[in-house]
Parts: sequence; structure tokens; C-alpha cells
Amino acid sequence: MPTPVVIALDAMGGDRGPEAVVAGADLCLARHRDIRFLFVGDGARVRPLLSQYPALAANSDIDHTELAVAMDDKPSEALRRGRWKSSMWRAVEAVKTGRAEFAVSGGNTGALMAMAKVCLKAMPGIERPAIAAIWPTVKAECLVLDVGATVEANAGQLIKFAFLGAAMARALRRMDRPTVALLNIGTEEVKGLEAIKDAHAQLRAMPLPFEYQGFVEADRIGHDAADVVVTDGFTGNIAIKTAEGTARQVGAYLRAAMEQSLLSQLGGFIAQDAFRVLKAKMDPRRSNGGVFLGLNGLVIKSHGGADATGYASAIDLGYDMARAGLIARTRLDVAAVMPEIAARAAVTQQALESSSG
Amino acid sequence: MPTPVVIALDAMGGDRGPEAVVAGADLCLARHRDIRFLFVGDGARVRPLLSQYPALAANSDIDHTELAVAMDDKPSEALRRGRWKSSMWRAVEAVKTGRAEFAVSGGNTGALMAMAKVCLKAMPGIERPAIAAIWPTVKAECLVLDVGATVEANAGQLIKFAFLGAAMARALRRMDRPTVALLNIGTEEVKGLEAIKDAHAQLRAMPLPFEYQGFVEADRIGHDAADVVVTDGFTGNIAIKTAEGTARQVGAYLRAAMEQSLLSQLGGFIAQDAFRVLKAKMDPRRSNGGVFLGLNGLVIKSHGGADATGYASAIDLGYDMARAGLIARTRLDVAAVMPEIAARAAVTQQALESSSG
Repeated sequence: MPTPVVIALDAMGGDRGPEAVVAGADLCLARHRDIRFLFVGDGARVRPLLSQYPALAANSDIDHTELAVAMDDKPSEALRRGRWKSSMWRAVEAVKTGRAEFAVSGGNTGALMAMAKVCLKAMPGIERPAIAAIWPTVKAECLVLDVGATVEANAGQLIKFAFLGAAMARALRRMDRPTVALLNIGTEEVKGLEAIKDAHAQLRAMPLPFEYQGFVEADRIGHDAADVVVTDGFTGNIAIKTAEGTARQVGAYLRAAMEQSLLSQLGGFIAQDAFRVLKAKMDPRRSNGGVFLGLNGLVIKSHGGADATGYASAIDLGYDMARAGLIARTRLDVAAVMPEIAARAAVTQQALESSSG
Repeated sequence: MPTPVVIALDAMGGDRGPEAVVAGADLCLARHRDIRFLFVGDGARVRPLLSQYPALAANSDIDHTELAVAMDDKPSEALRRGRWKSSMWRAVEAVKTGRAEFAVSGGNTGALMAMAKVCLKAMPGIERPAIAAIWPTVKAECLVLDVGATVEANAGQLIKFAFLGAAMARALRRMDRPTVALLNIGTEEVKGLEAIKDAHAQLRAMPLPFEYQGFVEADRIGHDAADVVVTDGFTGNIAIKTAEGTARQVGAYLRAAMEQSLLSQLGGFIAQDAFRVLKAKMDPRRSNGGVFLGLNGLVIKSHGGADATGYASAIDLGYDMARAGLIARTRLDVAAVMPEIAARAAVTQQALESSSG
């Protein structure tokens, strides 16, 4: 049996409290026997829950702390109050000290990112981290980043997001040269924002450890246009939330249509296995988990409203990436192209200066 | 019978050529007897098509021109080659000269917007036009703008988009005080881009002919969060294409699920009426038509791939707005708040200057 993967869980993060975290961890333990959990949070609440899951309790430790970051704390506030002491901070810190291989929190995204940046620091060569989301597609899945960490991204940051996303695709989906595209509002080279056009031109000219495919439009993300789709945090967040909202909306249309008459209800009853398959396919809990990329350690953000099933998916995602050595791989990839990126940035800077001078 | 509404149609725009335009016009004539069409394009192609629809032929004129803008012409190129002479230009020009009440084209969006701006000019007080799309929601529909005309928008432009969208909602949906929201990545006041935060602060403080509701997240657009959702052209384009792609993706899941077994096929057969309702509800042709707002005249962009049904929807949309006097109403709304907007812009400018000085 290999050395267990130790996973730090912020037991106090998320709308459903430690109940969902503990139950999610138990689901995950049933799938992977080579894990241990470090529950960070109020021992008085976690211990009685653990006693309901003897196998889990035998594979868990508790790091007691009473302070929890609230879902509506501003990041700066959360850092000021919660540094060193909160369950969120200490879960992330366990990754920094090497006590855990990765941390999962369902707490507030802004606070978690602020703490992860301060505690783990950005990887050499990366100034701004990104959050990657798994976007289910017709045939498989796609990684979309950034979905909210870096609201505005310049060309250099978009290029680095491409490297971070490609490294994650390689680790998670065991692919050699994933395809990467930049999200834009047209596939012609004339359209879109300056930062995107600039990143596009640079990616076209650079040696890359992935296949750069150029621009992709938003309607193609779910139709397997690329393994990795790169955008800034504002646009990525709009895209992923639009997709969530639309999927729910179509689900509502379908339910209304199937309930419209006795005949449609009968048809729905006969085809109930098909609807079960559809429901499972569209279950947002299956793709729960935003991965913080570009930091010296792995942190997963679980959806705040996730139940045990959703929470277990987020842990699974971290487990797969930890086993694949995501952080080490990413460091190597980024290091390999850093001189190239730095040289190009200097050339661009010179060109700007000479054109404005 | 009231004076007929004359509608200029760019007969050469769109992937399906004059066939779809003529057939679409015929569908539309069956619904509204008080219209006349001006087909702008190659008479040698339009005339034989019209002869298949006698009622339509009796209510149509042809403005012959052989030059057509290509779907992949760059806007500048289209303007240089196609000004004065192309079917697209002359359809728009018919609105300017008062020969038609509005123009519809399925041709390339960039070229159409460039021609509309040069020919019709922006309304007093509006620097940048917007394209509004109709976004079907669970209960009704929502207007989203801009979906591609003004890629980057500052606070003042976003505020004017709010006015343009509200005027369109009042005209199209006969509502007194539509609700308007700004698209953002969170509902808290701290999140998002500077332009959005600035527009939000100004809208909160201004007398408005609509109900300003603050920020809305993208997953709420389709769930009736507001009658009008305002964003810049880049973000709006990403959102609407994501929604289109996701709806198609869920449709593909559903078809696959219903074909998985004999039992599911039987259930699907029995419930076929329900699926027909669902299909109609999700038919993108029903909400075809991007409306150019902020110009001195009404221009509708039909989807390039639209068939006759889709094209007819775009004409219907223009018809409803022309009958409701959209342009005159919008001018009044914008004029009423122009001093207010100008005064606020001056205050912001002064504050910036004194803080940097």
C-alpha cells in the first residue's frame, strides 16, 4: 500500500457545515483506501459526527480551532481576523507545512483565495493565480480558467493561464499534448480585446508543451472544441454561471413539458431510466470543485452549497491531481518557458516604449 | 387600415441567400397585413422568387443592386467597397431617407453595424450603439445588451445601455417601469470591474425611468432576475453564446438518453407531444433578431444561418418595435436624462483631476 495521501478539510466551510464535510469524506474514503483526513475546525462539532463513521474516524485527525470564516466576510476582513487561527487558514497551512497534500474548503471563495495566496505564495514565474473549473462537454470534459481569481488579465497572464491549464489537463486526464484555446467573441484574428489578441499572437510564435488552437467562441466550449479554454476571471465566471443557469432552465422546461398531460406523464414513467441517466449526466455535483492553480500547493474550492456527494467530488478531484503530481509538473512546465515569456514581454515593452517615444 | 409599415430587407444577407429572405417575408405578411417590403438586392434573383408568392409580390418593391457584402468581409472593407452600392447599405439607407421604417439584414454583423453607424449616426447623447438580444427566460423573456457592438464599455456607456434597453423593454413589452440590472460576477458591491462598479454607483444615485435592481449574476439571467440585463459587448456576446451552446448540449444529452433503450424510445413516443412543446420552447429561431440600439433608425440583425421561420421572427420583432415608436421613445428618454448624465460625468472628471493633481 502506498503512503496515504493526507487531505486537509476545512470542516467549517460551506453552507451545510461539518455534516456535509464529514459525510463527503466518508464517501471518498470508500473509493480510495489510501487516504487520511485532517479535519480542521471545531472539535466539539466534528468529533460526534466522526463517531458515526468508524472507518473514517480511524483514518482521521482533528486540528481543533473554533474560529471560522463567514460566507460573507470580505477577503481582507477574513485575512485580518482569520489568519493563523481560522479553520480555513489552518487547512491551507497544512499544505504549506507538508502535513497535507492538498486542502479542500467550501468556504467563501474570495477569502480562500486571499489566504491561499498569502500562505502558499505564487509559484516562481506566476504573478496571478487562476481558478480552473471542470466544464462537462458532449463527449468528455474541458478545463476552463480563470473562473474568478484574476478579474482582469493581461496578455502575459493569459499565456500563463494556458500553461497552468495545460499542466492540469495533462495531470488529470493523462494526455500528452492537450489542446488549448483562447475564449473570444469571434474566431477571426481582428476581433476581441487587446490582451486576448496579444496573447494569441505570442502563443502562435512560442514553443509550447500543448497544442494551441487559436480562438474559440463560447458556444463551442461544451462541444469539445478544446481540452483547455483560457480567459480572464471575469469572463470565465460569466461563462460558467451562464452555463449553470441555462442547464437549470432547460431542466425546468423539460419538467414542465413532461407534466403537461397524462400521456406525457405515462411516457415519462416508461422512459424513467432515460431520465435518470439524463439527471445524472446533468448533476452539477459531479463536476464540483474549483482548482486554485499557480500557487505552491494545491487548494480546492468546493461549492458552498455542496452536499456530501458534491463535497466528495471535490476531494476526488484533488486526490487525482495530487497522485499525478500536479504541482511539480506545473512548476517544471512554467520554469521551462519562463525565459521565453520574459524575453517576449521585454520585446513588447521595448516596442511600446519606442512607439510612444 | 393604418398606413403600411414599410420594411427594407437586405435580400442578399445571410447564409441561405434571397430564398430564406423572401420566404420569411411571406410568413410575416400572413401575420401582418399592414406591411410592405422593399427587397434590396439582385432583381434577377429576387423577382423569380417573388413570383412564387403572389400576395407578397403585390406588397413588395425591389431596389436592384448587384453588389452584396460577403459574410467574411471586414467591416472597413465592406464599408469601402459597399457604401452607396451594396444591398446592405441601401437597406439601411432606406431607413435614413424615410422610405422604410426599419431594415433587416442577415449579413455580417460587423459590416452591418459599421454601415448603420455611418449611415444613420448615433442618437444625440449616445456615443456608442449597442445590440440587444432577446433572451428567453423560464417565465418570459429578458433583453440583454450589449451582445457585441461595443466590446469595451465605460461606466457612462453602460448607463446609456441601461436607458436604451429600458426604452426597448417599454416599447416591446408594454411595461411602464421595467427592471434593469448590471451583469456582474457577484452581487456584493465590492466585486467586479471598475466600469461596472462606477455605473452601479451612478445608477443608484440618479432619477431613472426604470427600476434599477443592482447587480445580477449570469446564472440568474434566464430565471427572470430582471427585464433588462446590461453589460459590455464582449461579456454579453460570451454570455449569449454560452447559453446557446449549453442549450444545444443539454438537447444532445436528452436525445442520447431517449435513444438508449427500446423502453426509453417507447416512452419518448408516447410523450411525443411533450417533446414537441419542449422543442418549440427551445427553438432558437423564436428569438432570432439582434436589435441595434442608439442609432437614428431601427436596424435588425437576423442570424446569418436563419431559415424562413427565423427570418420572419426578426421581421416581427422590428414590426412590433416600429409600431410602438421605439426610436422616438428612446430619444425622449435619453434626452430627459442627458443633462443629468453630463453633469455626473463632469463631477467624476473633476474628482479624478483633483485627486491626481
